[in-house]
Amino acid sequence: MDCAAFPMHPKMDEQLARTFAANEEEEERHIQKVQNAFLYYGPYACQRLKRSVDYLNSLSAEDQIMLAKYRGHLECVRTCIDRNQAVIREILRERVLYPPEETGENPSAGRWEFDEPPPNVRHGDMDQAQSTLKLIARDWSTDGALEREQSYKPIIDSIVEYYKPGDYELKEIKILVPGAGLGRLTYELACLGYSCEGNEFSYFMLIASNFVLNLCDYENKYVLYPWVHQYVNNLRREDQVTAVRFPDVCPLKNPPKGHFEIAAGDFLEVYKTPNAYNCVATCFFIDCANNVIDFIRTIYKILVPGGIWVNLGPLLYHYSDVSGQNSIEPTFEDLCIIMESVGFVIEKSRTGIRTKYAQNPSSMKQSEYQSLFWVCRKPDPFEEQRGKRKASREPHDLIVREDSEEEVEQQQQQQERAEKHPEQEQQQLKLQATSNDETEMEAQPT
Amino acid sequence: MDCAAFPMHPKMDEQLARTFAANEEEEERHIQKVQNAFLYYGPYACQRLKRSVDYLNSLSAEDQIMLAKYRGHLECVRTCIDRNQAVIREILRERVLYPPEETGENPSAGRWEFDEPPPNVRHGDMDQAQSTLKLIARDWSTDGALEREQSYKPIIDSIVEYYKPGDYELKEIKILVPGAGLGRLTYELACLGYSCEGNEFSYFMLIASNFVLNLCDYENKYVLYPWVHQYVNNLRREDQVTAVRFPDVCPLKNPPKGHFEIAAGDFLEVYKTPNAYNCVATCFFIDCANNVIDFIRTIYKILVPGGIWVNLGPLLYHYSDVSGQNSIEPTFEDLCIIMESVGFVIEKSRTGIRTKYAQNPSSMKQSEYQSLFWVCRKPDPFEEQRGKRKASREPHDLIVREDSEEEVEQQQQQQERAEKHPEQEQQQLKLQATSNDETEMEAQPT
Repeated sequence: MDCAAFPMHPKMDEQLARTFAANEEEEERHIQKVQNAFLYYGPYACQRLKRSVDYLNSLSAEDQIMLAKYRGHLECVRTCIDRNQAVIREILRERVLYPPEETGENPSAGRWEFDEPPPNVRHGDMDQAQSTLKLIARDWSTDGALEREQSYKPIIDSIVEYYKPGDYELKEIKILVPGAGLGRLTYELACLGYSCEGNEFSYFMLIASNFVLNLCDYENKYVLYPWVHQYVNNLRREDQVTAVRFPDVCPLKNPPKGHFEIAAGDFLEVYKTPNAYNCVATCFFIDCANNVIDFIRTIYKILVPGGIWVNLGPLLYHYSDVSGQNSIEPTFEDLCIIMESVGFVIEKSRTGIRTKYAQNPSSMKQSEYQSLFWVCRKPDPFEEQRGKRKASREPHDLIVREDSEEEVEQQQQQQERAEKHPEQEQQQLKLQATSNDETEMEAQPT
Repeated sequence: MDCAAFPMHPKMDEQLARTFAANEEEEERHIQKVQNAFLYYGPYACQRLKRSVDYLNSLSAEDQIMLAKYRGHLECVRTCIDRNQAVIREILRERVLYPPEETGENPSAGRWEFDEPPPNVRHGDMDQAQSTLKLIARDWSTDGALEREQSYKPIIDSIVEYYKPGDYELKEIKILVPGAGLGRLTYELACLGYSCEGNEFSYFMLIASNFVLNLCDYENKYVLYPWVHQYVNNLRREDQVTAVRFPDVCPLKNPPKGHFEIAAGDFLEVYKTPNAYNCVATCFFIDCANNVIDFIRTIYKILVPGGIWVNLGPLLYHYSDVSGQNSIEPTFEDLCIIMESVGFVIEKSRTGIRTKYAQNPSSMKQSEYQSLFWVCRKPDPFEEQRGKRKASREPHDLIVREDSEEEVEQQQQQQERAEKHPEQEQQQLKLQATSNDETEMEAQPT
C-alpha cells in the first residue's frame, strides 16, 4: 500500500516515527501546534474561569453571600481543570512522535504549560483540546456506553451480518474505518477478528488514541472531568464537575484478535489503491469533506467488487460555514443520486437513527442527531451477470421517488425469491469474498 | 409608572413614537442599525448561497451532473431568500419609529437593500435578523403550536390556577412579561382577560411584533421560509425551503379582552416601581442577565405582596461566553438559594420540562431544553402571620438538601391541612388580590 500509514497498535516504533517525521517539516510544525494546544489547556481554561471569579468578586457583599456555594463550586472547577491538565501531561508523556526537547525550533516547546498563548494556537485549537476530553469519555468510558451503542452497534451488526464469523476467515476480511477518532469502533471490529485499519487526520485524536491504545496499562486508571467547561444549563453544581474514568477496556491487556492499526493522514491523500478493502465503515465522517462526492468516489474505488460501505451519521457538513473553505451540502436525497451514479447499490437505508454525540447526560440542553444509516455494495460484475445479490436490497427509507411503488414491488419479489433460496444466497456471499481477497492481493502495488 | 413604555397595541401613535425618539439619539442610531440589518438580510443571505454555487460551478462536469437537482435546489433557496426579503420590506413598511428618509444621517438608510454591509452592522446582527424569521414561525404560525404548548401552557395554566377567572376581576390582575419577544405569551394572557404588559429590549423583536400585532390585517396573509439558512442536516431538499404562513391568529381582528401593551427598554432600567404587578411571567428570559440576582431582585420588588413569579426556561446564560461581557452562571441549586434569600417562597418547582426553541422540525439535528419551571410567591406579611398560604407549597424537584426529608414531611402536613379547608384557602387568595391592587394603586409614583 502506498499510504503513509504507521502502526499505533502495538506501540509505535520510535525510530519509525522519527523517520516519518523527518520527511515532513510542515507536519512536524502542525504536531507541535497540537501539543502546544494540549499544554495550554489549563491556563486557557483558567482564564475563562477567572472572568467569572473576577465578576463575582465585584458584586455586592449581599450578592456574594447568596453565591457562597457557587464560589466554592468555582474553586472545585479549578481543581478539575488542574486534574484534566495532569491527565493531558500523561497523554503527552511519551511523545514518541516529536519530543519537543529535540525540535530546537520553539524555546517554550519543552515546557509543560504556558502562561500566554503559544504561537499559532487559536481558539479553535483550544476547543479541540477540550473536545478531545469529551471524546475520550464517549469512546473509552462506561459513561459513553449508550452513545457507542447508538452509533457503533448498527455498523458492527451489519458487518457481522455481511461477513458472518462462521462463513469467513475473518482475518482475511479487511476493514477500513476513515475518521477513526479515538479508535473504539476500529478496536471493536478488530476484537471480532476482522483485519482493521483506522484512518485519522487530527493529531488531537491521534495523540489521545495512541495513549489509550498503547500506554494505558490497566482499566479505569485515569479520571477526567469532561463537562467542566460547560458553565451553562447545569441543574446541580456537581453536574459540571462529574468525574469520568477511562479506559473502560484496556487494549494493552485485551489485544484484538484481528489485525489492528491506526494510520495518520488525509483520507483522500492516503487511500488511492483500488480494490483494497472488503468493507469501509464510516461513522460521523462523510460530512467532513469539502465535496462529499470525493469521499464517496474514493470509498467506491478502494472497495473490492462485492465489498460493502457501511455508514452512520448526520449531514452536518463541517466546512459549511467555515470562512475560506469550500463546501457543498447535498441532502440525503442528493446523496442517494450520487451513490448510485458513482456505481453503488444501496442495499439498506434508514433515517432517524437517534444518536447523541459527546453529550453531557446531565445537561439541561440535549441535542441528538436523527442519523442516516446505510449499507452500499460495490457491484461485482461477475455476480451481477448472475443477478443474485440484488435480492437482499431493501427499499430506501423516506425517499419518495416517482418510481418508488413499482420499485418496492420489485424489491418485495426479489426478497421473496431470496427467502426461498437462502443457502444459495449464502454460498454466493462466500464465493464472492474469496475472490475479493484474491483480487485485492493482485492489485497491491509495491 | 416611570418607564419609557409606549403602547404597541393598538397601533403605536406616530407622534408619540417620534417624541420618544427625539430624546434618545443613541437609541435612534441603534434602531437604524437594526433596520439596516433587516434591509441587508437578502444580500447577506445570497452571499452565503453564492459561495456554494461558485464551488459547485468549479467542480468537474461529472460531479455537476450528479448535483443537477441540488443545483436546482440552490436556485429555489435564492427564491425563498427573495421572498423573505419581501416580507421584511413589509415589516419595515410602516416604520413609524424612525423613517430613515428623515434621519438625514446615513445617505444609504432610505434604500431597501444594500450591496455591501451597512455601517456598524455585524455578523451577530445578521444572525438576529435571520432568527427573527424563526421566532415569527414559533410565535405566530400553526407550525409553532407545539413549541408554544411546551413553553407557554405551563405558565398560563399556573396563572389561571392562581388568579382563577371565576374568583377575580381579571382586568385588575396586572401581569408583566419581561423578554416578551414577539408577544404571543403576553397576547394569550391578555386574551384571557388579564391586564398585560410585555417588555422587550431587542428592536429586532419590537419591529417584528409591532408588525404582527398592529399591521397584519388577516390570518395567514404572509409566507416565510424560516429554515432556508440551514444548509446542513437536511433529509430532503424541500426541508430547507418549507413555507410557513403567519399570523395564525390576527390580533387586529381578535383584540384581547384585557389591556395589552408592549413596552420597549431594558428590564432593569424600566422597572423600578415597587409593588406594581400581581404576576411576573418569564419565559426563556432569566438567563439573559449578566447577574441573574439583579433580575430576581427586581422581580421581587415590582411584585405586590402575595404576587407570583412564574418562570419557565433553561439556564443558557447568554453572556457566558460573550467577550467583553460579565457573567456568572449559577446552577438551579444556586438559584433556589438566591430566590429564598431574596425573600421568595418557592411554591412549585419542576425540572426536565421538554421544550424546543425555534427548531426546524425536519432537521436531522434536534435540540431541546430540559427546562426549569417554578412558581414563586412574594410573601404578604399580613398573610404570613396567619400562616395560610404556605399550604400550597410543593417540594422542590430534584434538589437534594440536608433538611429535605423533614421539609417534605412538613409540606405534606401543610398540604393535608389545605385540602381540608379549600374554601378558606380560596377566600384568602381573593382577599389578598384585592388588597394587592390597592397597594399597587397607592404605591404608584407620578
